[in-house]
Amino acid sequence: MDVAAISEEETVLEIGVVLPKRKNNTDIDNGDCIEVLTGEFQNMGLIVERVVGFQSEILKLGAPTKILGKAATELQLKKRTHIGMDLQFHMDEIDAFIRQPDGSLFSWHERLRCYQHILYDTVKVNKPAMKFKCGDKEVCWEMGESILRKLETEGIVKEIFPLHDDVMRKQLVKSWALNWWDFTEQPIDEICSYFGMKIAIYFAFLGMYTRWLFFPAAFGLIVHLIDFGWLQFFVLPAFFVCLVTWAVLFFQFWKRKNSALLARWQVDQTPGAGRDYKAFELEWSLFQFPSDHIKKYGSEKITEKEAFQRDEWFGRFMRYRNDFVVILSIICLQLPFELAYAHFYAVIESDLLKFGLTVVYLLSIQYLTRIGGKIAVKLVNREASKNVEYRADSLVYKVFGLYFMQSYVGLFYHAVLHRNLMTLRRVLIQRLIFSEVVENLLENSIPYFKYKLKKFRAVRFKRKCDRGTVTGKLPRVEKEFLKPTYSASICEELEDGLFDDFLELALQFGMIMMFACAFPLAFTFAALNNITEIRTDALKLLVMLRRPVPRHDATIGAWLNIFQFLIVMSICTNCILLVCLYDREGEWNISPGLVAILVMEHALLLIKFGFSHFVPEEPTWVRANRMKNTTQAHDMCSRELLRSISGGKKMFKEIEKEE
Amino acid sequence: MDVAAISEEETVLEIGVVLPKRKNNTDIDNGDCIEVLTGEFQNMGLIVERVVGFQSEILKLGAPTKILGKAATELQLKKRTHIGMDLQFHMDEIDAFIRQPDGSLFSWHERLRCYQHILYDTVKVNKPAMKFKCGDKEVCWEMGESILRKLETEGIVKEIFPLHDDVMRKQLVKSWALNWWDFTEQPIDEICSYFGMKIAIYFAFLGMYTRWLFFPAAFGLIVHLIDFGWLQFFVLPAFFVCLVTWAVLFFQFWKRKNSALLARWQVDQTPGAGRDYKAFELEWSLFQFPSDHIKKYGSEKITEKEAFQRDEWFGRFMRYRNDFVVILSIICLQLPFELAYAHFYAVIESDLLKFGLTVVYLLSIQYLTRIGGKIAVKLVNREASKNVEYRADSLVYKVFGLYFMQSYVGLFYHAVLHRNLMTLRRVLIQRLIFSEVVENLLENSIPYFKYKLKKFRAVRFKRKCDRGTVTGKLPRVEKEFLKPTYSASICEELEDGLFDDFLELALQFGMIMMFACAFPLAFTFAALNNITEIRTDALKLLVMLRRPVPRHDATIGAWLNIFQFLIVMSICTNCILLVCLYDREGEWNISPGLVAILVMEHALLLIKFGFSHFVPEEPTWVRANRMKNTTQAHDMCSRELLRSISGGKKMFKEIEKEE
Repeated sequence: MDVAAISEEETVLEIGVVLPKRKNNTDIDNGDCIEVLTGEFQNMGLIVERVVGFQSEILKLGAPTKILGKAATELQLKKRTHIGMDLQFHMDEIDAFIRQPDGSLFSWHERLRCYQHILYDTVKVNKPAMKFKCGDKEVCWEMGESILRKLETEGIVKEIFPLHDDVMRKQLVKSWALNWWDFTEQPIDEICSYFGMKIAIYFAFLGMYTRWLFFPAAFGLIVHLIDFGWLQFFVLPAFFVCLVTWAVLFFQFWKRKNSALLARWQVDQTPGAGRDYKAFELEWSLFQFPSDHIKKYGSEKITEKEAFQRDEWFGRFMRYRNDFVVILSIICLQLPFELAYAHFYAVIESDLLKFGLTVVYLLSIQYLTRIGGKIAVKLVNREASKNVEYRADSLVYKVFGLYFMQSYVGLFYHAVLHRNLMTLRRVLIQRLIFSEVVENLLENSIPYFKYKLKKFRAVRFKRKCDRGTVTGKLPRVEKEFLKPTYSASICEELEDGLFDDFLELALQFGMIMMFACAFPLAFTFAALNNITEIRTDALKLLVMLRRPVPRHDATIGAWLNIFQFLIVMSICTNCILLVCLYDREGEWNISPGLVAILVMEHALLLIKFGFSHFVPEEPTWVRANRMKNTTQAHDMCSRELLRSISGGKKMFKEIEKEE
Repeated sequence: MDVAAISEEETVLEIGVVLPKRKNNTDIDNGDCIEVLTGEFQNMGLIVERVVGFQSEILKLGAPTKILGKAATELQLKKRTHIGMDLQFHMDEIDAFIRQPDGSLFSWHERLRCYQHILYDTVKVNKPAMKFKCGDKEVCWEMGESILRKLETEGIVKEIFPLHDDVMRKQLVKSWALNWWDFTEQPIDEICSYFGMKIAIYFAFLGMYTRWLFFPAAFGLIVHLIDFGWLQFFVLPAFFVCLVTWAVLFFQFWKRKNSALLARWQVDQTPGAGRDYKAFELEWSLFQFPSDHIKKYGSEKITEKEAFQRDEWFGRFMRYRNDFVVILSIICLQLPFELAYAHFYAVIESDLLKFGLTVVYLLSIQYLTRIGGKIAVKLVNREASKNVEYRADSLVYKVFGLYFMQSYVGLFYHAVLHRNLMTLRRVLIQRLIFSEVVENLLENSIPYFKYKLKKFRAVRFKRKCDRGTVTGKLPRVEKEFLKPTYSASICEELEDGLFDDFLELALQFGMIMMFACAFPLAFTFAALNNITEIRTDALKLLVMLRRPVPRHDATIGAWLNIFQFLIVMSICTNCILLVCLYDREGEWNISPGLVAILVMEHALLLIKFGFSHFVPEEPTWVRANRMKNTTQAHDMCSRELLRSISGGKKMFKEIEKEE
């Protein structure tokens, strides 16, 4: 508790507000808006540090726990209490709530929500309407208006971004990013408290996946190197069966690990109960939407149900229409393109031409993927659903569809149509090396060069202002401002850079699983790659980029389904590969009628296991009812319970000690 | 509310306690135990009616709401409140709790729990140790001992059973059992309030299933009757694809309907939260079991987790070992037996011999199934799990395995090995008619004859006592006592007679789905059968049998998985059937290597979709933690919340009115 008390007293400055630098340093008067802003922040109890950089001025803000607590009380933030129920936070009953493992009261995600509330909703002008001068512009605001929002719309506040905490960052760089000899071990709890849950879950997944990869990596190496004599015939099928079992078990154990992590981080796991704060709130608004209908049509319960159901089915129809459009356009537009490339690549003999073709292809797919991503975003935006979580998942599925075709169609072409396993292997090795070496390099060097470029511009700007003489170093916080954000490369709408990282993992998993029988060594490549991936990703997050905005997602979401889908695909493709491998002379024949029936069987099995998703198990109105009930109950008991918990907390402590 | 008040004042006598009839009517003194029992019951506030029957004396008991409420308070029964949370019942805060749709405070299931508590735990002897005479026996009990338990162990109280409520029964007979022209419509809410949730869910399922069956029944009829010309070739595959889609959609919509029903009946649907009272309590004791280990080994949290995990995996290992034993013995013992019968049936030409063989076969499988059922019960009992729900499911799976082999192996034999579709069709028709007509008849006539026999014995007994002259009619309550209970035919341990009814449905579903392509007309048979099944089952429950003990299960449980499994099986078998149908000349050949790979593929897909069940997604300790948390929270807030709810109830009512 002592440590907690100390760390709370030292308020860390966690938010940066970027303002343009005044050209004339002498022009300081009371009407200046930076002064006003700083003053208001200080009035609110925030700690403000003003840093004059080369190109802009940055206000570093920090809030003592007391101020954060006040904001949390106003926000009615739900927090885990000592009785294991999430209740609305109240500053007076502070003892009822569980503290973070590092002793602080709020998690980074909660702190950021509080900051947001303080900055946008609390800091207001308390004086009558006034005019302020800010650089060249004159800003005029009225009583009770939010200063920051006004300044943002006027374009004076360039950006507000979360700052790195240098003490913790240095510690993490040492214990995590540069700790190569730990292989897959990572300080997940510290990552969670520094970067938020979603990123911690990603690294926990990556670590566990890499650890589990060691088994198929070793098996693959053995299969590749050792000749088993007359047993050779059975080695590949056995390898394949083990692989599938391995993959299925891995994902089951991952789910267990995920729920164990959530239990450790004190996240409420009852489904529907605050999976994501944002999603929850927005779902609420979704659920209240049909009640507008009711007021028009009548007030009976049955009408409410009907309105919900109409809404639900209409929403589903829109989604399936969109999915259908996406799948159709991928098959009709992307597939022929990819097949054409694969065909030309197989037909052309000159190496130079092949290289040229590949370059043209790579450039064009970059462009096409971007277009595809934009279309997907537009489609998702048109869907009626306001559920953030669902939208993010839907976008991930659609964009992954594009990448799936891109990555595997050429390989299928070589494998099945040409039965050319040597080309397939060569392409596989190329892709693996490309993705492992080149992508890792690019991933880290692009942000670095972007940063360098911006820094260079800042120095040039300074030189221009100071007429040639650059004095002093670029302040650290401005350096941080110049760093790129952690965002997805394909489109900004994908919530953050984790999309790229998960995509890389999923494509790698698909590649090694789907063509496992053709190239068992791939697992060894992948394992080696992932060991470096852990550390380079850590470095990227800690050093190369700004501190990302934390997200409260508790699982890997849509990606789990994608991985599961890849396992099923890999069962089918490996069977085809085995047929190709063992039937080089084309002796194994199969009648067309039988083929038709087999195809029908597979399609039906797909329907059986996929179709159940079309009709959700629980009607929306039941869910809405339940959520209404839970929130009502929670809100009612909140205050009274808190008092009894914080009163009884001593008792709890004693019980814990006894345990 | 007026109706509710009246119905509560007329206390219905709902429990019958059966005692032996005293031979000598004159021998009544204060020491007689029936007198004592009646007196104690009346002291407790119960309403007692004493009926002297032909063979035994029956005490009919009823409890006014006040007495039930007191018992419920003592039991700390969880009940749905107006804020949608289940809280511990308390008599003083009666207004906080939601009433049943029929206006009464407690459901039939809750009433029975209260009766149980009152009869066994509350009715005690308050006098010092005494001796009582009861017929020939002398019973001696001590202060504070439960009278009823003592009398039961002494064999004086023969049975305690729930009584039919004649008013409601007559109403249900009229509106449900004899209401043939409603086809699949049933008054589900009344069934639920009279028989409890589990039976209502069964009838809701049966009704919906029959309603949905009309579509494939019509389609099957069309396929059977109309000749499509050159399209004939595609009709069967199209029929089959539609069927699979139909089945998948049906079960999804059933899940929706189920959750809608539960919402209507105010059942808490958050997973783990009181799925079944009994299961919940017993899981609790399971979860506390490993904590004994801890006290021995140490008190650290990690040890607790480890103890949980050791326990969990050991339990799983035991289960899989048992499952393995069951599957192995079914394959090694039952399969050859069934195949032998099918083979002899196909080989023998004389009709008389065939008939004799079938009779011998039918008698022997009756016997073998019983043995199998007993073995399954023993295996399940050996498993460490104390979770009632899990145990019931496990037993259902094991016993269904036996029936599955029994019902379908012969059919497979005809279909695949002999490619003899005509025999297959004949056997199918025989089975369907047998199951539909004969089983329905037996199901209703056996209880009737059992009852008649018992009644005859009672009258003979009376005649013996009265020396030849039988005066008066058999009292209605004694008639009820003579009726058979609603129990499974194979073994008593299967919780109730619903096992037989669900088994009939599942076997029918398997039969019509798995051989759909061979005999599309089967769906029409099944639909007709199910329409009668609804009414005959209703009659059986209302007229033929004693009122069953209600159960609080919210879903159809294990049967859903069995139905889903049958859909997947039907995809595979129908594909095989189609091959047999279209490939009469054996022109379609397939190389053994390809067969091996296809078999491997199917096995792997099975692993993929089945294996995930081997490793549960959530470790037991996480679940235990969560349940501990929830119950802790609930218990803490219970009392305080109740007061505020019942205080605020007027507010709620006003809100409801406004809505």
